[in-house]
Amino acid sequence: MSLNEFDLIKGYFKSKSAAVDNDVCIGIGDDCAILDVPDGYQLAVSTDTLVSGVHFFTDVDPYRLGYKALAVNLSDLAAMGAMPKWISLAITLPEIDETWVSEFSRGFFELANKYKVSLVGGDTTKGPLSITVSVKGLIPRGVALRRDNASDGDLICVSGCLGDGALGLESKLKDIPLNDRAYFIDALELTDPQIKLGILLRDLASSCMDISDGLTQDLKHILKASLCAAKIELEKLPLSAALKTEVAKGNITEQQALQFALTGGDDYELLFTIAADKLPILEKLIADYNINISVVGTIYKNKQPIIELFDNHKLVSFSQEGWDHFQQGKQ
Amino acid sequence: MSLNEFDLIKGYFKSKSAAVDNDVCIGIGDDCAILDVPDGYQLAVSTDTLVSGVHFFTDVDPYRLGYKALAVNLSDLAAMGAMPKWISLAITLPEIDETWVSEFSRGFFELANKYKVSLVGGDTTKGPLSITVSVKGLIPRGVALRRDNASDGDLICVSGCLGDGALGLESKLKDIPLNDRAYFIDALELTDPQIKLGILLRDLASSCMDISDGLTQDLKHILKASLCAAKIELEKLPLSAALKTEVAKGNITEQQALQFALTGGDDYELLFTIAADKLPILEKLIADYNINISVVGTIYKNKQPIIELFDNHKLVSFSQEGWDHFQQGKQ
Repeated sequence: MSLNEFDLIKGYFKSKSAAVDNDVCIGIGDDCAILDVPDGYQLAVSTDTLVSGVHFFTDVDPYRLGYKALAVNLSDLAAMGAMPKWISLAITLPEIDETWVSEFSRGFFELANKYKVSLVGGDTTKGPLSITVSVKGLIPRGVALRRDNASDGDLICVSGCLGDGALGLESKLKDIPLNDRAYFIDALELTDPQIKLGILLRDLASSCMDISDGLTQDLKHILKASLCAAKIELEKLPLSAALKTEVAKGNITEQQALQFALTGGDDYELLFTIAADKLPILEKLIADYNINISVVGTIYKNKQPIIELFDNHKLVSFSQEGWDHFQQGKQ
Repeated sequence: MSLNEFDLIKGYFKSKSAAVDNDVCIGIGDDCAILDVPDGYQLAVSTDTLVSGVHFFTDVDPYRLGYKALAVNLSDLAAMGAMPKWISLAITLPEIDETWVSEFSRGFFELANKYKVSLVGGDTTKGPLSITVSVKGLIPRGVALRRDNASDGDLICVSGCLGDGALGLESKLKDIPLNDRAYFIDALELTDPQIKLGILLRDLASSCMDISDGLTQDLKHILKASLCAAKIELEKLPLSAALKTEVAKGNITEQQALQFALTGGDDYELLFTIAADKLPILEKLIADYNINISVVGTIYKNKQPIIELFDNHKLVSFSQEGWDHFQQGKQ
C-alpha cells in the first residue's frame, strides 16, 4: 500500500467535508484549521477512540461504525448543552478497502450532515484499525451543564427509553431468540445523540451527563461530583414497547429488562437532574420536539454517593440471583 | 489487564494535567472540557496520529515519543502563528507498562509545561500502540498564516538549520559512522516547535508552513496554493556546524548534506515567505529571541509550481547520481 493510496483516502474525506457553515475560516489543507468562535461563546471538546476488537466487533458494518464513532462523541456535546460544530477524524487502517471506506464515510457524514457538523481535519494513517474522533462544539459562556451541581430534592430524569442498546449488545454476544432483534441492534448501533434536549436543558437542569455505561454507573458520577445520594423508582424506568414485548413473549425476564435499563449502558440518552419547579417549564419546551422525558427518582443530600432502589415504594437490592425485597438496607 | 488498570493510567495523566492557565473552565472528568476563547480570537486545531512501526520505531524511547508526539502538533500551530493552549491525548496501549507510561508522560509534559499547554481530555484504550494528539491554539481573528498568499518577489525564508533530523533518521536506518550521532538523533527526536517565531510572523509573513516532509516538498504546497514558482539558492541553505563537520570528516558527501537539507524532512523549522521590505522589521524583532532566519530563495509568478535550484547562480538539477550543472532547464 503506497502513500498515494492513503492520499486518495484523504481526498475522499476531504471532498465530503465542504464547510457546511461559514465558521470554518480555513478548513482541511493547511497546517491547522482556523475556526471562528463567536464572541461570548465557550468551546466544548471531547475525544473518543474506538479500537477494533475492543470497542466494536471486527466484522462490524462500516456504515454503522462510521455513524456510531461520531454519535458517541456528539452525545458528549449534548450532555454539556453544546451545539456541535466541528470534527477531527483520525482513522488508522490496515489496508485500503474502498468499499469499506466508502461505507464508513457514508455513515459518518450522514450524522455529520444531520447536525451540520464540518469535518475540519484529522489524519489517515496505516496500522491496526482504530478511529479517534475529536468533536468541538459551542456554548454560550457560563451555561455548560456540569456534573457537580445536583442538589437536595432535585428530580432525576432520563430521556427516551433505557435498556434497548444493552439487549442489542447481549443479542450479539449470545444467541438469544428475540421477537425484533433488528430493533435492538439498531438501538445499539444507530443511536441518535440528544443534541436538542441538551440545548433546551441549559438554563434548567442542575446537572447532566449522557448514559454510556449504564444508568446507575453514570448516576454515581453525578452523585460523587455533587456530594449527594439518589433514590430510583424501578417502576418508573422507561422501557420501550419492544422491550416489554420481549418480556411478554418470555424471551427475557422482567428482571433482565430492568437490569438492562439500570446497568446496561449504550443508551446514549441524557441523564439529568432538575429542580422540581422547573420540570413543567421543560415539559412545555420539549412538547414540540418529540422528546420523551421520564422522572425516575430523586436526589437527597448524603455524604456517600449511594443509590437506593425502590420497587413500588419498597426498598430492594439486586444480586446475581435477581431482586431481593427487604425492609431496610441500601444498595 | 483490567479496566481498573486503565483507570490508573488515566488518573496518572489527569494528575499531571492541572490546568496551567485559567482558560480551562471545566477540565478532565466531565463529558467535555469547556474552554474559554477570548473575544476576538479564532481557534486553530490540528490532529496527528503516530502509529508504532509506521511513524516511530517499536523500540523508541518513550520519553522521546511523548515529547515528539506533542512537538509535531505544536509545530502545526506555530506554522499558523497560533499560541498553543490545550491538548487532547488519545493513547492506545497493548498493555500497562508503568515505566513506559511514566516516561512517555514525562516527555509529553516537559514540552506541554514549557509552552503552558493544558491537557484537557482524551481517551486511554487497549489495543495496538498508537497516539493521536489534537492540539488547540488561539490566534487573533484574521491574522492566521496561510499557505496561499505568497506573491511575486517575496523572499523565501527558513528558520534554524536544515537536514540534521534527516541525517538522524538515516543514521537510525543505516549504520553510518558519524562524528556526533547523538546530536543528529536529538535533532530528529527532540525538535523544538517554532512557536515564538510563528507569533512574530503574524503581521509580516505572506505565507508559512512547517517543514515536516522536506523543504522542496513542503514549499510545493505553498507554490500550489499561491499559484507561484520558486528559485532556491543551494549555497544559502542553512547547514549546522555539526552537519558541515560530518562533510569535512568525509562521513557524508556535500551532496548528501544538501539533499538532506532540501528533501530530508523532520526539521520542523518554519518555511515562510515575506515581502523583501519587511525582512528588516522581522530581523529586528527576532534579535532578542535566539532565532536564526535564512533567506534561501525568491518567489516568482508562474502557472506551474516549479522549483528552480541554483548553485552559485548556476541552474542545477538533481538526480539519483547527484547534482548536474547545466545552463538551462528546470527541475
